[in-house]
Amino acid sequence: MSAIWVLSVGGGALSGSDDAARAVGRALSGLGAPVSWRLAVEDDEAALEPTLRAGLESAALVVVLGQPGGSAGEIVPRVLSRLTGARLVLHERRLALLEAEFARRGRAMPRRLDRLALLPQGALLWVPPDGEPGWTLEARGGAVAVLPGGSPHLDAIVQEMVLPLARARVGRCPAQVARTLLTTGLAAAEAEERLGSWLGKEGAATVSCALVEGDVHVRLTGLGPTLALAEAALEPLAADVRAALGVDCYGRDEDTLEEVVGRLLLERGFQVSLAESCTGGLLGHRLTNVAGSSRYVERGVVVYSNRAKEELLGVPEALLRAHGAVSEPVALAMAAGICRVSGTQCALAVTGIAGPDGGSAEKPVGTVWIACAAPGGVEARRHLFPGGRVSVKWRSSQAALDMLRRRLLR
Amino acid sequence: MSAIWVLSVGGGALSGSDDAARAVGRALSGLGAPVSWRLAVEDDEAALEPTLRAGLESAALVVVLGQPGGSAGEIVPRVLSRLTGARLVLHERRLALLEAEFARRGRAMPRRLDRLALLPQGALLWVPPDGEPGWTLEARGGAVAVLPGGSPHLDAIVQEMVLPLARARVGRCPAQVARTLLTTGLAAAEAEERLGSWLGKEGAATVSCALVEGDVHVRLTGLGPTLALAEAALEPLAADVRAALGVDCYGRDEDTLEEVVGRLLLERGFQVSLAESCTGGLLGHRLTNVAGSSRYVERGVVVYSNRAKEELLGVPEALLRAHGAVSEPVALAMAAGICRVSGTQCALAVTGIAGPDGGSAEKPVGTVWIACAAPGGVEARRHLFPGGRVSVKWRSSQAALDMLRRRLLR
Repeated sequence: MSAIWVLSVGGGALSGSDDAARAVGRALSGLGAPVSWRLAVEDDEAALEPTLRAGLESAALVVVLGQPGGSAGEIVPRVLSRLTGARLVLHERRLALLEAEFARRGRAMPRRLDRLALLPQGALLWVPPDGEPGWTLEARGGAVAVLPGGSPHLDAIVQEMVLPLARARVGRCPAQVARTLLTTGLAAAEAEERLGSWLGKEGAATVSCALVEGDVHVRLTGLGPTLALAEAALEPLAADVRAALGVDCYGRDEDTLEEVVGRLLLERGFQVSLAESCTGGLLGHRLTNVAGSSRYVERGVVVYSNRAKEELLGVPEALLRAHGAVSEPVALAMAAGICRVSGTQCALAVTGIAGPDGGSAEKPVGTVWIACAAPGGVEARRHLFPGGRVSVKWRSSQAALDMLRRRLLR
Repeated sequence: MSAIWVLSVGGGALSGSDDAARAVGRALSGLGAPVSWRLAVEDDEAALEPTLRAGLESAALVVVLGQPGGSAGEIVPRVLSRLTGARLVLHERRLALLEAEFARRGRAMPRRLDRLALLPQGALLWVPPDGEPGWTLEARGGAVAVLPGGSPHLDAIVQEMVLPLARARVGRCPAQVARTLLTTGLAAAEAEERLGSWLGKEGAATVSCALVEGDVHVRLTGLGPTLALAEAALEPLAADVRAALGVDCYGRDEDTLEEVVGRLLLERGFQVSLAESCTGGLLGHRLTNVAGSSRYVERGVVVYSNRAKEELLGVPEALLRAHGAVSEPVALAMAAGICRVSGTQCALAVTGIAGPDGGSAEKPVGTVWIACAAPGGVEARRHLFPGGRVSVKWRSSQAALDMLRRRLLR
């Protein structure tokens, strides 16, 4: 009963644009309750009901995040009403907010939209200066906070409404703190070896490994009668494990590799440019997901055709003919080329076979050459990634970002 | 009890690379049971247990997809054993497969990895020619199929093992067929107006709308005592609704907009090039997620800096100074520029303010100009998207792909 669930409702979460869940996870960490996982579910009543029921029964608090303009605003109250037995009532304040929203656009609110103001009896509303409100409900021993995922006031709503509720709910349970140390480029067997003396041991602090798209995530848990004691159990173990992981560990919890690389680039005053073939723009997409990335992302090119590799990067046609597009010399030439035309200190180049077609005995599907330019020179490395097209693209982008991170740390 | 759940376990699913779930959803559609939704959950026992319990209680069949090399292989058997009461036993066949895998790499399998061969008693294994097997378990009235998400044999496993089980399980329930018609660029109010005569009506076939990241998804359901009767109820309604949606409907069920655009480009023998500013590579990433896209994606440039816009696309500095980078003339010049240098018949250009910084009163965060070049000329359109940075990027890419789709259909 001591965990907090973060449940994202709607297609956006399933397609990966889940920054609201990450932000809420960050805000709620350190309460003495693990926010150790996220769930995503379609905004469909048949999908939501069993998931919310499980949350009400198993978690100290379920945080439900709707997508901006999604259907969650209508579906969640109905489902919660059925699950808790709380009647749906027309919430005067929410109705007034909706009507004001329409009035601002010079229109009358159609009566059929009154249904958007229905909330389970007992719900408490928190209203930001503009945009959608958040609300909470405690019933049948469980508690739910329903938040507008896309709101610019999400942080404020979490601070003002969700944190106090979470503190009160979690205070009733023995404290548990969780931390995840994120690694990439570390083989699972190597991780087991390094962490062997801790893995599988019972006690107030425990360590386990999970493999996520080829990356080892090391999960640490501390347990205690109070939050302070749970943290006291976790901290020394966390420090030891962190030291054992060394440079292979790039961050913790909700950190992303693109944020970490961005911070390193800013610290060193470097800019980066990108030459992508098989990743098709994913590397640029990930780096530019970080706010403020325009300060260090200078440009990128997606050079799917050989002609584009020649024209945009000056990769000699003879090199392409002699070695093929997926080769060490071409990867090196791509990185050197994008550095030259952009004038950046750093560059990443990726060329590979994402599949399902295009593989050969010598260069099977999943073969990817990655080159990294940084002050000191250009280096290239060959990878062979398992999985389908989307997985190969993801792992290529992860390996490329990590190559730059390790170069910047030298 | 008549639905089939598809549950993706592991970080890959949460980061959006969920092509296995989409493939399974496609294979299982048309059985007379709705595979109307997907769930993603971290590969963590505390996360998986309540979700799997809910599935066993509510669905005819739960299909669990592990990530390649993920921890699901170890966690799922343990959780299912607890939930169903089936003992964990060392599965001889699975053990032999694991040992053979190690032998192929010239190594002995460490005894501590025996745990990977534990399965709940009663599990049935289906073994592909190579790679991880799939397995099924029926217990306590529920049924689960556990599949290796990244396997090249996933389709075969689904055909040979999952479809027969699903048919048998679904055959015990009244049949229900579901279809989702996907639209983009259609306002929710406009959809409600066009579908008003069907929305909210009870009966053997029903229609409802969901808003997913700003897109209207129209959900149709047919019910009947048999599959044929459920389909007979659905089909005429589906045809009418499809006609009412017209060109705003780009596909159904698991179709993606990038696949639809790719097919249109192939049919017309056109290639496309991309000039991305605020989307940062997402447009290229989405188009190149489609197998075979190298036939029509010629190149892309990510022009985050004004200098890159000038050098790579020939956007005049004077134009950038006079109108700003986020403006109609610059979007048009970007599309014309990438067409000129790549020689493609079609091009998309995106320039906007993804936020959280960079907005002004005149051009608030979310302002995006999109230009589309196709035989017949270049056109541009202004958008104002709500939501955070990742959401603005996603909606920009969706609007750009849709602009090209509509041009190609003219």
